[in-house]
Amino acid sequence: MKGKIALEEHFAIPDTLQDSAGFLAESVWNELSVRLLDIHEKRLKLMDAHGIEMMLLSLNAPAVQAIPDPKKANDLAIKANDWLAEQVAKRPDRFQGLAALPMQDPDMAIRELQRCVRDLGFVGSLVNGFSQINDPNVAVYYDLKQYWPFWAENEKLDVPFYLHPRNPLPADAKIYDGHPWLLGPTWAFGQETAVHSLRLMASGLFDQHPNLKIVLGHMGEGLPYSMWRVDNRNGWVKEPPRYPAKKKLGEYFQNNFWLTTSGNFRTQTLIDAILEIGADRILFSTDWPFENIDHAADWFDVATISEADRIKIGRTNTEKLFKLKL
Amino acid sequence: MKGKIALEEHFAIPDTLQDSAGFLAESVWNELSVRLLDIHEKRLKLMDAHGIEMMLLSLNAPAVQAIPDPKKANDLAIKANDWLAEQVAKRPDRFQGLAALPMQDPDMAIRELQRCVRDLGFVGSLVNGFSQINDPNVAVYYDLKQYWPFWAENEKLDVPFYLHPRNPLPADAKIYDGHPWLLGPTWAFGQETAVHSLRLMASGLFDQHPNLKIVLGHMGEGLPYSMWRVDNRNGWVKEPPRYPAKKKLGEYFQNNFWLTTSGNFRTQTLIDAILEIGADRILFSTDWPFENIDHAADWFDVATISEADRIKIGRTNTEKLFKLKL
Amino acid sequence: MKGKIALEEHFAIPDTLQDSAGFLAESVWNELSVRLLDIHEKRLKLMDAHGIEMMLLSLNAPAVQAIPDPKKANDLAIKANDWLAEQVAKRPDRFQGLAALPMQDPDMAIRELQRCVRDLGFVGSLVNGFSQINDPNVAVYYDLKQYWPFWAENEKLDVPFYLHPRNPLPADAKIYDGHPWLLGPTWAFGQETAVHSLRLMASGLFDQHPNLKIVLGHMGEGLPYSMWRVDNRNGWVKEPPRYPAKKKLGEYFQNNFWLTTSGNFRTQTLIDAILEIGADRILFSTDWPFENIDHAADWFDVATISEADRIKIGRTNTEKLFKLKL
Amino acid sequence: MKGKIALEEHFAIPDTLQDSAGFLAESVWNELSVRLLDIHEKRLKLMDAHGIEMMLLSLNAPAVQAIPDPKKANDLAIKANDWLAEQVAKRPDRFQGLAALPMQDPDMAIRELQRCVRDLGFVGSLVNGFSQINDPNVAVYYDLKQYWPFWAENEKLDVPFYLHPRNPLPADAKIYDGHPWLLGPTWAFGQETAVHSLRLMASGLFDQHPNLKIVLGHMGEGLPYSMWRVDNRNGWVKEPPRYPAKKKLGEYFQNNFWLTTSGNFRTQTLIDAILEIGADRILFSTDWPFENIDHAADWFDVATISEADRIKIGRTNTEKLFKLKL
Ligand SMILES: [Zn+2]
Ligand SMILES: [Zn+2]
Ligand SMILES: [Zn+2]
Ligand SMILES: [Zn+2]
Repeated sequence: MKGKIALEEHFAIPDTLQDSAGFLAESVWNELSVRLLDIHEKRLKLMDAHGIEMMLLSLNAPAVQAIPDPKKANDLAIKANDWLAEQVAKRPDRFQGLAALPMQDPDMAIRELQRCVRDLGFVGSLVNGFSQINDPNVAVYYDLKQYWPFWAENEKLDVPFYLHPRNPLPADAKIYDGHPWLLGPTWAFGQETAVHSLRLMASGLFDQHPNLKIVLGHMGEGLPYSMWRVDNRNGWVKEPPRYPAKKKLGEYFQNNFWLTTSGNFRTQTLIDAILEIGADRILFSTDWPFENIDHAADWFDVATISEADRIKIGRTNTEKLFKLKL
Repeated sequence: MKGKIALEEHFAIPDTLQDSAGFLAESVWNELSVRLLDIHEKRLKLMDAHGIEMMLLSLNAPAVQAIPDPKKANDLAIKANDWLAEQVAKRPDRFQGLAALPMQDPDMAIRELQRCVRDLGFVGSLVNGFSQINDPNVAVYYDLKQYWPFWAENEKLDVPFYLHPRNPLPADAKIYDGHPWLLGPTWAFGQETAVHSLRLMASGLFDQHPNLKIVLGHMGEGLPYSMWRVDNRNGWVKEPPRYPAKKKLGEYFQNNFWLTTSGNFRTQTLIDAILEIGADRILFSTDWPFENIDHAADWFDVATISEADRIKIGRTNTEKLFKLKL
Repeated sequence: MKGKIALEEHFAIPDTLQDSAGFLAESVWNELSVRLLDIHEKRLKLMDAHGIEMMLLSLNAPAVQAIPDPKKANDLAIKANDWLAEQVAKRPDRFQGLAALPMQDPDMAIRELQRCVRDLGFVGSLVNGFSQINDPNVAVYYDLKQYWPFWAENEKLDVPFYLHPRNPLPADAKIYDGHPWLLGPTWAFGQETAVHSLRLMASGLFDQHPNLKIVLGHMGEGLPYSMWRVDNRNGWVKEPPRYPAKKKLGEYFQNNFWLTTSGNFRTQTLIDAILEIGADRILFSTDWPFENIDHAADWFDVATISEADRIKIGRTNTEKLFKLKL
Repeated sequence: MKGKIALEEHFAIPDTLQDSAGFLAESVWNELSVRLLDIHEKRLKLMDAHGIEMMLLSLNAPAVQAIPDPKKANDLAIKANDWLAEQVAKRPDRFQGLAALPMQDPDMAIRELQRCVRDLGFVGSLVNGFSQINDPNVAVYYDLKQYWPFWAENEKLDVPFYLHPRNPLPADAKIYDGHPWLLGPTWAFGQETAVHSLRLMASGLFDQHPNLKIVLGHMGEGLPYSMWRVDNRNGWVKEPPRYPAKKKLGEYFQNNFWLTTSGNFRTQTLIDAILEIGADRILFSTDWPFENIDHAADWFDVATISEADRIKIGRTNTEKLFKLKL
């Protein structure tokens, strides 16, 4: 399919490059570094070769989120966003930007989001999971009340927020002891991001800000398969759950969330997602440079769904959600 | 459908009853207690009313697994298994037993498994996740080498092992802070059990014991939806993963695992499981008394799968796997 | 689901009532007659009871199509349409009209379509398959060139055309000899309508009139399951097919056709239709009074698709396709 | 997948070669002829190249069925079967035979079936739809009472009967007038074979011979998608259908029929078939030489079903059904 748009597509600046070391085998580090630092060469050629008209670009992980000092986190976000804006300016027909945000300080995050959207023309933001704030050993999630003004600003600006994975802190990852391969995209990324999403849903955030738009990668981080059970366990017990949210969590999932195909090129999984959340809320993505563009595109272009859904997932859903001018 | 067999079906003895307090609202504790302590009254009536010919019974959770003292754990397992054997003896046409096991000491676990299978006629075992051993703050998983003789015995006796969920220890559950509703069946059960399963797969256990038969509840604890990604993340990196196992983890999942429908009465999820692991490895279950028998049966009896698969999932798969004489 | 719209919903006038005799057992003829002649009593009560906000009404089958004399066919169409317009005028919030058309004479059909849309406010037409013209033993299909001005008018007025089934003529039905139960909705309806649709696609009609909108009932009369094979049989033969149409037939199916759920309340079939043509082109319907409203609604309201698709199929797709003002 | 078995795989002898002319473009007639007359050269190379261990071979269509003179039909069947037996004898590890049968005379058909199974070692039969008997203008279907002794013999010998398509007679094909491309595999094959199957089901044949095993090609000739509607149309009418059979037709479909993938390499269609009839009754086939072996195998080997089902559909289901010694 030509004209695809992809939206979980990463780059690094020299300051954040090392954040991506360790995820993949050392033997490919050289290749990965080149991929991360490139925008207009190999990346664009691959986009051309595989029918991707546009990428929404975002900083690699965890980057800003892993800098406990809020001021330093803010400085890094600004630096990365400025650099990204320059790249987008060179080829606005092929690239648009998603803001990195210093979530360590909600006010700073609000200001940087405003700057990125209003001044730099970014179409949304992408944040790499929880933040460490001052204490590197504590993970802070964004359902906490101090983040609600930030969410209010997201709703006001009407830009989607991409909740991207990161690994749990070592103290919270004992279940993976002796099994480091279960960290990262293999499994731990999904657990982190799914629970973070469920926290947002249960907090009542979407009752107060019903127009918030959250994007999850990797076909929804496992949530579609289990969302029914989240709401229906112990179905004979008539007492309502004790979380602040007013509705079943699945209703927020259906109304406030969009899922991308990044790194999850499995047709069975795509079909299940369609039967749970509908094809209007699924968006093609690759997860470049951690996944290959050809792997994503070769799979998606012939995945056994309807052609109507292919066009929506491949392009028009993203076009509408991010109000892209194509 | 008449003649169904269900295999994640719990009971309590007075010593373990309190283990089930706290999972559900206090207002239903009385009803839950009665359900847990009953075998031949309400349970049997509901089985009759909803076409369940047989239940494989197992002790509630976490019970034996949460007793750090190995000797005490062993005593409790023996007590519970003896009581279960008495109940089964009254109606062997309607009930069969799954052994509780003192995993705190692999030798004791082996002996109790042997006793249960050989002397008590049990058809397998059900264990509630990791064990605490001596130190209540440390979770011990069964991929560790000290458990391999136990697994060898399982293979030798050729009886299935049901890996049932339990909650993470508080120190390992910080991600759920402020969101207690995410513990238990809502979410944490699945994470615990899925990771435990992946650890078993990655450890190489199934290379050494290729005929081990592991049963997972709740439609596979999320694994079917994500199993492709487990093996295929970063598909362009040609270095093999560094875990001891010789194959892709998905191959063990397909060859050594069976899934039950307990507590996950969602047709979309069932279809995805069929398309990932095949209908021969899916087994009807309810998760009584935490879930209702009518909820499970009313859903399953008309779930939109083929009638041939309904018979296999509802009865014959379990009959074959546990070599039941019906 | 409340607010559903249904669009294969029939009525009879006394002149056409007998056309519906013989399809169902004689024992229900009295009930069927009452159902067919009623608009505002039982029908409306059932709509209220089962969440159907609006029905698009159409004359029973074959009615106008089975009157070989074009003038008489035209007179009957006018009579039925006028009566329908009166009924719609009483409750335009609950009923809208689909025109019966004298296809025996394309000019008359054009004029009646214009009159119905412009003067009576009808939102489209519904035609019961082929027409007999003068000779009762010859079936005339609408891919023939004499019908292209009629199709041009449909495109100009931008109203959908519902191709409803009828039985083959006896001389063309020898395959069903000795098996009368295979006529009608059991099987013959589908064969007639699927082939009629394929003739339209192959004729090149949709190349010349790319905005034509054809609606098929009964989940597409079998076409979704077989459409791939229609285009791909003998895939190694590179010669293009010799039909006048410029594209694969499946492309017209995907771009010019919509399907309703009338009389085909099967979730597996619905899922296959979604995976072939997409949920945007599927429309809830019941086929009242030949099928029960409760059977259709009780099935659809809990069919295991996403809630987003339920709203589209149940209501908004039809609202958009027929430009309904609700 | 290696070790596949395929069972709708045709050959011609010089006497029947011309029967296959006209189905495909003239430009490929030379290639098609070579393919049809070959067994041990190109065919075997393609089998090797695409993981097909064994083919069950059958005569091309309509061949024997289109010879109105019963004696001549019988002679041709014997000739073809003898030639096939010689080919199988050369490579029994790679080929097995399905008998051509002179259905024009049930007694002759019985004798030839007995001879093929007992003397020639064939594992079943394949018949190309209805037969013309004496009168070339009349199609005779096998639900008629004169065929019941033939069916009894099939049950007694316990060999499957493959009901292969043929085109309707010209007098019965008026619906395709002007659209010759709708004949053959595009559409008419399916209609012919589906109705023939429904006639068998409705006749009561399977009540009397419950162990009959009928195989249909092309993913069931459209039946899985529509089988629910066959039995459930006009669901509010409680009178039983008036056909001789005692059960719903779908029950015979589920119990007496198997489907092959021949010429229908569509994953959506395969999934629907699995959800209707179960993976145990689906059998890999290609329809060589009318379809390409690589098209069938390349599709099937990666079709998005479970690996367990791939092995069953690709090999073990057919092995069991035909009691193959591999
Ligand atoms: Zn990523
Ligand atoms: Zn349980
Ligand atoms: Zn109708
Ligand atoms: Zn064939």
